[in-house]
Amino acid sequence: MDAIERLLAVEEIKKLKARYFKHLDFKEWDALAGLFTPDACIDYRGHARDLAENHGRSGMEPSPENWVFTGGRAVTAFLSPLLVDVISVHHGHDPQISVLDSDSATGFWALYDRLESAGDVFHGYGHYHERYRRVAGTWLISELVLTRRRSAIEPK
Amino acid sequence: MDAIERLLAVEEIKKLKARYFKHLDFKEWDALAGLFTPDACIDYRGHARDLAENHGRSGMEPSPENWVFTGGRAVTAFLSPLLVDVISVHHGHDPQISVLDSDSATGFWALYDRLESAGDVFHGYGHYHERYRRVAGTWLISELVLTRRRSAIEPK
Amino acid sequence: MDAIERLLAVEEIKKLKARYFKHLDFKEWDALAGLFTPDACIDYRGHARDLAENHGRSGMEPSPENWVFTGGRAVTAFLSPLLVDVISVHHGHDPQISVLDSDSATGFWALYDRLESAGDVFHGYGHYHERYRRVAGTWLISELVLTRRRSAIEPK
Repeated sequence: MDAIERLLAVEEIKKLKARYFKHLDFKEWDALAGLFTPDACIDYRGHARDLAENHGRSGMEPSPENWVFTGGRAVTAFLSPLLVDVISVHHGHDPQISVLDSDSATGFWALYDRLESAGDVFHGYGHYHERYRRVAGTWLISELVLTRRRSAIEPK
Repeated sequence: MDAIERLLAVEEIKKLKARYFKHLDFKEWDALAGLFTPDACIDYRGHARDLAENHGRSGMEPSPENWVFTGGRAVTAFLSPLLVDVISVHHGHDPQISVLDSDSATGFWALYDRLESAGDVFHGYGHYHERYRRVAGTWLISELVLTRRRSAIEPK
Repeated sequence: MDAIERLLAVEEIKKLKARYFKHLDFKEWDALAGLFTPDACIDYRGHARDLAENHGRSGMEPSPENWVFTGGRAVTAFLSPLLVDVISVHHGHDPQISVLDSDSATGFWALYDRLESAGDVFHGYGHYHERYRRVAGTWLISELVLTRRRSAIEPK
Protein backbone atom coordinates (compact mmCIF):
# COMPACT_ATOMS: atom_id res chain seq x y z
CA MET A 1 0.00 0.00 0.00
CA ASP A 2 1.24 3.47 -0.72
CA ALA A 3 0.80 6.50 1.51
CA ILE A 4 -2.40 7.67 -0.20
CA GLU A 5 -4.08 4.28 0.15
CA ARG A 6 -3.20 4.25 3.84
CA LEU A 7 -4.58 7.75 4.38
CA LEU A 8 -7.78 6.82 2.55
CA ALA A 9 -8.18 3.70 4.69
CA VAL A 10 -7.72 5.72 7.91
CA GLU A 11 -10.35 8.26 6.85
CA GLU A 12 -12.79 5.52 5.75
CA ILE A 13 -12.41 3.72 9.08
CA LYS A 14 -12.99 6.93 11.07
CA LYS A 15 -16.14 7.49 9.02
CA LEU A 16 -17.23 3.88 9.60
CA LYS A 17 -16.99 4.43 13.35
CA ALA A 18 -18.80 7.79 13.04
CA ARG A 19 -21.65 5.91 11.35
CA TYR A 20 -21.64 3.37 14.20
CA PHE A 21 -22.27 6.19 16.69
CA LYS A 22 -24.86 7.90 14.50
CA HIS A 23 -26.88 4.76 13.73
CA LEU A 24 -26.73 3.66 17.37
CA ASP A 25 -28.03 6.97 18.72
CA PHE A 26 -30.68 7.34 16.01
CA LYS A 27 -31.73 3.69 16.51
CA GLU A 28 -31.14 2.92 12.82
CA TRP A 29 -30.75 -0.79 13.49
CA ASP A 30 -30.50 -2.13 9.93
CA ALA A 31 -27.87 0.43 9.02
CA LEU A 32 -25.97 -0.34 12.24
CA ALA A 33 -26.03 -4.08 11.56
CA GLY A 34 -24.54 -3.44 8.11
CA LEU A 35 -21.35 -1.97 9.60
CA PHE A 36 -20.06 -5.35 10.84
CA THR A 37 -18.61 -8.36 9.05
CA PRO A 38 -20.90 -11.43 9.32
CA ASP A 39 -18.41 -13.06 11.69
CA ALA A 40 -17.66 -9.93 13.73
CA CYS A 41 -17.09 -10.49 17.43
CA ILE A 42 -18.71 -7.70 19.49
CA ASP A 43 -17.86 -7.82 23.15
CA TYR A 44 -19.85 -5.48 25.43
CA ARG A 45 -18.98 -7.37 28.64
CA GLY A 46 -17.07 -4.38 29.99
CA HIS A 47 -20.28 -2.36 30.12
CA ALA A 48 -22.32 -5.15 31.68
CA ARG A 49 -19.68 -5.89 34.31
CA ASP A 50 -19.46 -2.20 35.19
CA LEU A 51 -23.24 -2.06 35.71
CA ALA A 52 -23.19 -5.20 37.83
CA GLU A 53 -20.09 -4.53 39.91
CA ASN A 54 -20.20 -0.77 40.36
CA HIS A 55 -23.92 -0.05 40.28
CA GLY A 56 -25.50 -3.16 41.72
CA ARG A 57 -27.44 -4.01 38.58
CA SER A 58 -27.59 -7.67 39.42
CA GLY A 59 -29.90 -10.26 37.91
CA MET A 60 -29.04 -9.17 34.38
CA GLU A 61 -30.34 -11.28 31.53
CA PRO A 62 -28.08 -12.25 29.82
CA SER A 63 -25.54 -12.22 32.63
CA PRO A 64 -22.52 -9.95 32.11
CA GLU A 65 -20.23 -12.73 30.91
CA ASN A 66 -22.63 -13.37 28.03
CA TRP A 67 -22.71 -9.88 26.51
CA VAL A 68 -20.73 -11.13 23.48
CA PHE A 69 -22.30 -11.30 20.02
CA THR A 70 -21.44 -12.55 16.55
CA GLY A 71 -22.33 -10.31 13.62
CA GLY A 72 -24.34 -7.12 13.27
CA ARG A 73 -27.79 -8.77 13.37
CA ALA A 74 -27.10 -10.38 16.72
CA VAL A 75 -25.98 -7.03 18.14
CA THR A 76 -28.97 -5.06 16.94
CA ALA A 77 -31.41 -7.80 18.03
CA PHE A 78 -29.91 -7.39 21.49
CA LEU A 79 -29.61 -3.58 21.53
CA SER A 80 -32.94 -2.55 20.03
CA PRO A 81 -35.18 -3.76 22.91
CA LEU A 82 -32.55 -2.71 25.48
CA LEU A 83 -32.51 0.89 24.25
CA VAL A 84 -36.18 1.26 23.30
CA ASP A 85 -36.87 3.68 26.18
CA VAL A 86 -33.34 5.08 26.43
CA ILE A 87 -32.11 8.31 24.85
CA SER A 88 -28.50 7.47 24.07
CA VAL A 89 -25.51 9.65 23.22
CA HIS A 90 -22.22 8.02 22.15
CA HIS A 91 -19.17 10.14 21.32
CA GLY A 92 -15.89 8.66 20.11
CA HIS A 93 -12.59 10.43 20.69
CA ASP A 94 -8.93 10.42 19.73
CA PRO A 95 -8.72 7.40 17.43
CA GLN A 96 -5.49 5.51 16.82
CA ILE A 97 -6.02 3.69 13.52
CA SER A 98 -3.24 1.36 12.32
CA VAL A 99 -3.52 -0.02 8.80
CA LEU A 100 -1.92 -3.47 8.73
CA ASP A 101 -2.39 -4.20 5.03
CA SER A 102 -4.78 -3.33 2.23
CA ASP A 103 -7.67 -5.20 3.89
CA SER A 104 -7.06 -5.17 7.64
CA ALA A 105 -6.56 -2.56 10.32
CA THR A 106 -6.84 -1.99 14.07
CA GLY A 107 -8.33 0.88 16.02
CA PHE A 108 -8.44 2.30 19.53
CA TRP A 109 -10.99 4.93 20.54
CA ALA A 110 -11.98 6.71 23.74
CA LEU A 111 -15.71 6.79 24.47
CA TYR A 112 -18.13 8.96 26.38
CA ASP A 113 -21.67 7.65 26.50
CA ARG A 114 -24.77 9.05 28.14
CA LEU A 115 -27.78 6.80 28.58
CA GLU A 116 -30.90 8.55 29.79
CA SER A 117 -33.79 6.39 30.93
CA ALA A 118 -36.99 7.24 32.78
CA GLY A 119 -35.37 7.36 36.19
CA ASP A 120 -31.71 8.19 35.79
CA VAL A 121 -28.79 9.21 33.58
CA PHE A 122 -25.75 6.98 33.10
CA HIS A 123 -22.43 8.67 32.20
CA GLY A 124 -19.81 6.23 30.94
CA TYR A 125 -16.09 6.55 30.14
CA GLY A 126 -14.31 3.76 28.33
CA HIS A 127 -12.45 2.58 25.26
CA TYR A 128 -13.06 0.55 22.13
CA HIS A 129 -10.40 -1.92 21.01
CA GLU A 130 -11.24 -2.80 17.42
CA ARG A 131 -10.29 -4.63 14.25
CA TYR A 132 -11.50 -3.82 10.76
CA ARG A 133 -11.59 -5.78 7.53
CA ARG A 134 -12.18 -4.58 4.01
CA VAL A 135 -14.81 -6.72 2.26
CA ALA A 136 -15.53 -6.06 -1.42
CA GLY A 137 -13.95 -2.62 -1.09
CA THR A 138 -15.82 -1.54 2.06
CA TRP A 139 -14.27 -1.30 5.53
CA LEU A 140 -16.31 -3.08 8.21
CA ILE A 141 -15.86 -3.71 11.94
CA SER A 142 -14.68 -7.29 12.47
CA GLU A 143 -13.99 -7.07 16.20
CA LEU A 144 -15.12 -4.68 18.94
CA VAL A 145 -14.21 -4.92 22.61
CA LEU A 146 -15.52 -2.27 24.99
CA THR A 147 -13.67 -1.64 28.24
CA ARG A 148 -14.67 0.76 31.00
CA ARG A 149 -12.55 3.14 33.02
CA ARG A 150 -15.35 4.59 35.07
CA SER A 151 -19.02 5.49 35.10
CA ALA A 152 -21.53 7.40 37.20
CA ILE A 153 -25.30 7.22 37.51
CA GLU A 154 -27.28 10.28 38.61
CA PRO A 155 -30.96 10.23 39.47
CA LYS A 156 -33.25 12.54 37.50
CA MET B 1 -10.86 15.12 -8.16
CA ASP B 2 -8.21 12.61 -7.27
CA ALA B 3 -7.77 10.91 -3.92
CA ILE B 4 -5.29 13.48 -2.60
CA GLU B 5 -7.57 16.39 -3.42
CA ARG B 6 -10.44 14.65 -1.62
CA LEU B 7 -8.31 13.97 1.45
CA LEU B 8 -7.13 17.59 1.50
CA ALA B 9 -10.72 18.81 1.27
CA VAL B 10 -11.80 16.58 4.17
CA GLU B 11 -8.96 17.83 6.39
CA GLU B 12 -9.63 21.47 5.45
CA ILE B 13 -13.32 21.10 6.29
CA LYS B 14 -12.57 19.49 9.66
CA LYS B 15 -10.26 22.41 10.41
CA LEU B 16 -12.92 24.88 9.29
CA LYS B 17 -15.35 23.38 11.81
CA ALA B 18 -12.63 23.34 14.48
CA ARG B 19 -12.26 27.09 13.92
CA TYR B 20 -16.03 27.51 14.22
CA PHE B 21 -15.90 25.98 17.72
CA LYS B 22 -12.79 27.92 18.73
CA HIS B 23 -14.04 31.32 17.56
CA LEU B 24 -17.47 30.72 19.10
CA ASP B 25 -16.07 29.82 22.53
CA PHE B 26 -13.47 32.61 22.48
CA LYS B 27 -16.11 35.10 21.28
CA GLU B 28 -14.00 36.01 18.23
CA TRP B 29 -17.00 37.28 16.33
CA ASP B 30 -15.33 38.71 13.21
CA ALA B 31 -13.32 35.55 12.69
CA LEU B 32 -16.45 33.44 13.24
CA ALA B 33 -18.44 35.47 10.70
CA GLY B 34 -15.70 34.89 8.14
CA LEU B 35 -16.25 31.13 8.16
CA PHE B 36 -19.59 31.33 6.31
CA THR B 37 -20.48 32.07 2.71
CA PRO B 38 -22.39 35.37 2.36
CA ASP B 39 -25.57 33.43 1.54
CA ALA B 40 -25.08 30.73 4.19
CA CYS B 41 -28.25 29.49 5.87
CA ILE B 42 -27.68 28.93 9.61
CA ASP B 43 -30.58 27.25 11.36
CA TYR B 44 -30.43 27.15 15.16
CA ARG B 45 -34.16 26.44 15.60
CA GLY B 46 -33.41 23.03 17.12
CA HIS B 47 -31.71 24.70 20.09
CA ALA B 48 -34.44 27.30 20.55
CA ARG B 49 -37.23 24.73 20.33
CA ASP B 50 -35.46 22.53 22.86
CA LEU B 51 -35.21 25.45 25.30
CA ALA B 52 -38.86 26.34 24.81
CA GLU B 53 -40.37 22.86 24.79
CA ASN B 54 -38.19 21.02 27.29
CA HIS B 55 -37.14 23.78 29.65
CA GLY B 56 -40.06 26.18 29.63
CA ARG B 57 -38.03 29.06 28.24
CA SER B 58 -41.07 30.72 26.73
CA GLY B 59 -41.36 34.30 25.59
CA MET B 60 -38.15 34.05 23.57
CA GLU B 61 -37.27 36.92 21.31
CA PRO B 62 -36.98 36.01 18.47
CA SER B 63 -39.38 33.10 18.83
CA PRO B 64 -37.89 29.66 18.18
CA GLU B 65 -39.20 29.44 14.62
CA ASN B 66 -37.18 32.54 13.78
CA TRP B 67 -33.74 31.35 14.86
CA VAL B 68 -32.63 31.15 11.20
CA PHE B 69 -29.97 33.49 9.82
CA THR B 70 -28.37 34.35 6.48
CA GLY B 71 -24.59 34.83 6.44
CA GLY B 72 -21.96 35.07 9.11
CA ARG B 73 -22.63 38.68 10.09
CA ALA B 74 -26.27 37.95 10.89
CA VAL B 75 -25.24 35.03 13.06
CA THR B 76 -22.63 36.89 15.06
CA ALA B 77 -24.90 39.92 15.49
CA PHE B 78 -27.38 37.52 17.05
CA LEU B 79 -24.93 35.44 19.10
CA SER B 80 -22.68 38.11 20.55
CA PRO B 81 -25.27 39.75 22.85
CA LEU B 82 -26.85 36.36 23.63
CA LEU B 83 -23.54 34.93 24.89
CA VAL B 84 -22.10 38.06 26.50
CA ASP B 85 -22.51 36.67 30.03
CA VAL B 86 -22.26 33.00 29.08
CA ILE B 87 -19.10 30.85 29.28
CA SER B 88 -19.60 28.48 26.38
CA VAL B 89 -17.95 25.19 25.49
CA HIS B 90 -18.69 23.53 22.13
CA HIS B 91 -17.10 20.22 21.18
CA GLY B 92 -17.65 18.55 17.79
CA HIS B 93 -17.36 14.79 17.43
CA ASP B 94 -17.18 12.00 14.84
CA PRO B 95 -17.52 13.94 11.57
CA GLN B 96 -18.78 12.33 8.38
CA ILE B 97 -17.50 14.56 5.58
CA SER B 98 -18.56 13.72 2.01
CA VAL B 99 -16.84 15.60 -0.80
CA LEU B 100 -19.33 15.95 -3.68
CA ASP B 101 -17.03 17.72 -6.14
CA SER B 102 -14.05 20.07 -6.09
CA ASP B 103 -16.11 22.91 -4.58
CA SER B 104 -18.93 21.33 -2.57
CA ALA B 105 -19.23 18.91 0.32
CA THR B 106 -21.57 17.82 3.11
CA GLY B 107 -20.87 17.14 6.76
CA PHE B 108 -22.50 15.58 9.80
CA TRP B 109 -21.15 16.15 13.32
CA ALA B 110 -22.16 15.23 16.83
CA LEU B 111 -22.13 18.09 19.35
CA TYR B 112 -21.74 18.51 23.07
CA ASP B 113 -22.23 22.05 24.30
CA ARG B 114 -22.05 23.49 27.80
CA LEU B 115 -23.46 26.96 28.39
CA GLU B 116 -22.75 28.37 31.82
CA SER B 117 -24.61 31.49 32.86
CA ALA B 118 -24.94 33.22 36.21
CA GLY B 119 -27.63 30.87 37.50
CA ASP B 120 -27.29 27.54 35.76
CA VAL B 121 -25.40 25.25 33.42
CA PHE B 122 -26.95 23.92 30.19
CA HIS B 123 -25.62 20.61 28.82
CA GLY B 124 -26.67 19.96 25.23
CA TYR B 125 -26.39 16.94 22.94
CA GLY B 126 -27.17 17.29 19.26
CA HIS B 127 -25.95 17.18 15.68
CA TYR B 128 -24.92 19.55 12.91
CA HIS B 129 -26.10 18.81 9.38
CA GLU B 130 -23.94 20.95 7.09
CA ARG B 131 -22.96 21.91 3.60
CA TYR B 132 -19.69 23.49 2.53
CA ARG B 133 -18.61 25.42 -0.54
CA ARG B 134 -15.14 26.31 -1.72
CA VAL B 135 -14.92 30.00 -2.60
CA ALA B 136 -11.66 31.32 -4.10
CA GLY B 137 -9.85 28.25 -2.80
CA THR B 138 -11.19 28.42 0.76
CA TRP B 139 -13.79 26.06 2.21
CA LEU B 140 -16.66 27.86 3.96
CA ILE B 141 -19.89 26.75 5.66
CA SER B 142 -22.83 27.34 3.32
CA GLU B 143 -25.51 25.60 5.39
CA LEU B 144 -25.77 24.65 9.06
CA VAL B 145 -28.77 22.98 10.70
CA LEU B 146 -28.56 22.13 14.39
CA THR B 147 -30.79 19.38 15.77
CA ARG B 148 -31.07 18.29 19.39
CA ARG B 149 -31.27 14.82 20.86
CA ARG B 150 -31.39 15.88 24.48
CA SER B 151 -30.34 18.50 26.97
CA ALA B 152 -30.27 19.09 30.70
CA ILE B 153 -30.08 22.22 32.84
CA GLU B 154 -28.60 22.08 36.31
CA PRO B 155 -28.75 24.94 38.82
CA LYS B 156 -25.46 26.27 40.16
CA MET C 1 6.68 19.14 1.25
CA ASP C 2 4.00 17.90 -1.04
CA ALA C 3 0.34 17.43 -0.18
CA ILE C 4 0.72 13.77 0.78
CA GLU C 5 3.59 14.48 3.16
CA ARG C 6 1.51 17.20 4.83
CA LEU C 7 -1.49 14.90 5.20
CA LEU C 8 0.71 12.16 6.66
CA ALA C 9 2.19 14.63 9.15
CA VAL C 10 -1.27 15.79 10.25
CA GLU C 11 -2.46 12.22 10.82
CA GLU C 12 0.74 11.28 12.66
CA ILE C 13 0.41 14.29 14.96
CA LYS C 14 -3.25 13.50 15.72
CA LYS C 15 -2.18 9.97 16.62
CA LEU C 16 0.67 11.31 18.76
CA LYS C 17 -1.83 13.34 20.78
CA ALA C 18 -4.21 10.36 20.97
CA ARG C 19 -1.36 8.40 22.53
CA TYR C 20 -0.78 11.25 25.00
CA PHE C 21 -4.37 10.91 26.22
CA LYS C 22 -4.26 7.10 26.29
CA HIS C 23 -0.96 6.82 28.16
CA LEU C 24 -2.02 9.55 30.63
CA ASP C 25 -5.32 7.86 31.49
CA PHE C 26 -3.80 4.37 31.67
CA LYS C 27 -0.88 5.71 33.75
CA GLU C 28 1.65 4.36 31.24
CA TRP C 29 4.33 6.77 32.40
CA ASP C 30 7.32 5.56 30.38
CA ALA C 31 5.31 5.55 27.17
CA LEU C 32 3.96 9.02 28.00
CA ALA C 33 7.45 10.40 28.65
CA GLY C 34 8.55 9.12 25.25
CA LEU C 35 6.10 11.39 23.42
CA PHE C 36 8.07 14.57 24.18
CA THR C 37 11.33 15.96 22.85
CA PRO C 38 14.04 16.06 25.54
CA ASP C 39 13.79 19.86 25.64
CA ALA C 40 9.98 20.02 25.48
CA CYS C 41 8.37 22.79 27.53
CA ILE C 42 5.18 21.53 29.22
CA ASP C 43 3.20 24.26 30.91
CA TYR C 44 0.29 23.12 33.11
CA ARG C 45 0.02 26.43 34.99
CA GLY C 46 -3.46 27.03 33.60
CA HIS C 47 -4.76 23.99 35.47
CA ALA C 48 -2.99 24.87 38.71
CA ARG C 49 -4.16 28.49 38.61
CA ASP C 50 -7.72 27.37 37.97
CA LEU C 51 -7.60 25.08 41.02
CA ALA C 52 -6.13 27.83 43.18
CA GLU C 53 -8.23 30.75 42.00
CA ASN C 54 -11.58 29.13 41.32
CA HIS C 55 -11.63 26.27 43.80
CA GLY C 56 -9.60 27.55 46.73
CA ARG C 57 -6.94 24.84 46.41
CA SER C 58 -4.31 26.99 48.06
CA GLY C 59 -1.04 25.83 49.54
CA MET C 60 -0.18 23.86 46.43
CA GLU C 61 3.26 22.38 46.18
CA PRO C 62 4.70 23.37 43.76
CA SER C 63 2.83 26.66 43.62
CA PRO C 64 0.80 27.26 40.46
CA GLU C 65 3.46 29.44 38.81
CA ASN C 66 5.85 26.51 38.96
CA TRP C 67 3.78 23.94 37.11
CA VAL C 68 6.17 24.12 34.12
CA PHE C 69 8.37 21.17 33.17
CA THR C 70 11.17 20.37 30.73
CA GLY C 71 11.01 17.03 28.96
CA GLY C 72 8.82 13.97 29.32
CA ARG C 73 10.61 12.52 32.35
CA ALA C 74 10.05 15.68 34.39
CA VAL C 75 6.36 15.61 33.51
CA THR C 76 5.78 11.99 34.41
CA ALA C 77 7.80 12.31 37.62
CA PHE C 78 5.39 15.08 38.57
CA LEU C 79 2.16 13.48 37.33
CA SER C 80 2.57 9.91 38.54
CA PRO C 81 2.34 10.63 42.31
CA LEU C 82 -0.28 13.35 41.70
CA LEU C 83 -2.62 10.95 39.89
CA VAL C 84 -1.91 7.80 41.89
CA ASP C 85 -5.37 7.82 43.52
CA VAL C 86 -7.16 9.64 40.69
CA ILE C 87 -9.16 7.99 37.92
CA SER C 88 -8.55 10.36 35.03
CA VAL C 89 -10.32 10.82 31.70
CA HIS C 90 -8.85 13.17 29.07
CA HIS C 91 -10.58 13.71 25.73
CA GLY C 92 -9.14 15.91 22.97
CA HIS C 93 -11.40 17.57 20.44
CA ASP C 94 -11.38 19.47 17.16
CA PRO C 95 -7.66 19.75 16.41
CA GLN C 96 -6.21 22.46 14.21
CA ILE C 97 -2.85 21.10 13.04
CA SER C 98 -0.65 23.38 10.92
CA VAL C 99 2.42 21.84 9.32
CA LEU C 100 5.11 24.53 9.07
CA ASP C 101 7.77 22.47 7.31
CA SER C 102 8.89 18.85 7.08
CA ASP C 103 9.96 18.77 10.73
CA SER C 104 7.82 21.30 12.61
CA ALA C 105 4.14 21.91 13.19
CA THR C 106 1.70 23.60 15.57
CA GLY C 107 -1.54 22.34 17.05
CA PHE C 108 -4.58 23.60 18.94
CA TRP C 109 -6.96 21.21 20.70
CA ALA C 110 -10.03 21.52 22.90
CA LEU C 111 -9.97 19.41 26.08
CA TYR C 112 -12.46 17.85 28.42
CA ASP C 113 -10.95 16.21 31.47
CA ARG C 114 -12.57 14.40 34.36
CA LEU C 115 -10.50 13.74 37.48
CA GLU C 116 -12.18 11.52 40.02
CA SER C 117 -10.59 11.27 43.45
CA ALA C 118 -11.86 9.79 46.69
CA GLY C 119 -13.98 12.78 47.60
CA ASP C 120 -14.98 14.58 44.44
CA VAL C 121 -15.06 14.76 40.65
CA PHE C 122 -13.36 17.58 38.74
CA HIS C 123 -14.75 18.45 35.28
CA GLY C 124 -12.40 20.66 33.24
CA TYR C 125 -12.76 22.50 29.94
CA GLY C 126 -9.71 23.99 28.29
CA HIS C 127 -7.33 24.05 25.35
CA TYR C 128 -3.88 22.82 24.42
CA HIS C 129 -1.60 25.15 22.46
CA GLU C 130 1.17 22.97 21.09
CA ARG C 131 4.28 22.66 18.94
CA TYR C 132 5.63 19.47 17.43
CA ARG C 133 9.03 18.52 16.04
CA ARG C 134 10.01 15.54 13.94
CA VAL C 135 13.07 13.82 15.38
CA ALA C 136 14.60 10.91 13.44
CA GLY C 137 11.34 10.53 11.53
CA THR C 138 9.02 10.55 14.56
CA TRP C 139 6.75 13.43 15.52
CA LEU C 140 7.06 14.48 19.16
CA ILE C 141 5.53 17.19 21.33
CA SER C 142 8.05 20.01 21.79
CA GLU C 143 5.75 22.50 23.53
CA LEU C 144 2.46 22.15 25.40
CA VAL C 145 0.57 24.98 27.08
CA LEU C 146 -2.74 24.19 28.77
CA THR C 147 -5.26 26.98 29.26
CA ARG C 148 -8.60 26.73 31.04
CA ARG C 149 -11.97 28.16 30.07
CA ARG C 150 -13.89 26.74 32.99
CA SER C 151 -14.14 23.91 35.46
CA ALA C 152 -16.50 22.54 38.08
CA ILE C 153 -16.00 20.29 41.09
CA GLU C 154 -18.84 18.14 42.37
CA PRO C 155 -18.76 16.20 45.63
CA LYS C 156 -19.31 12.45 45.45
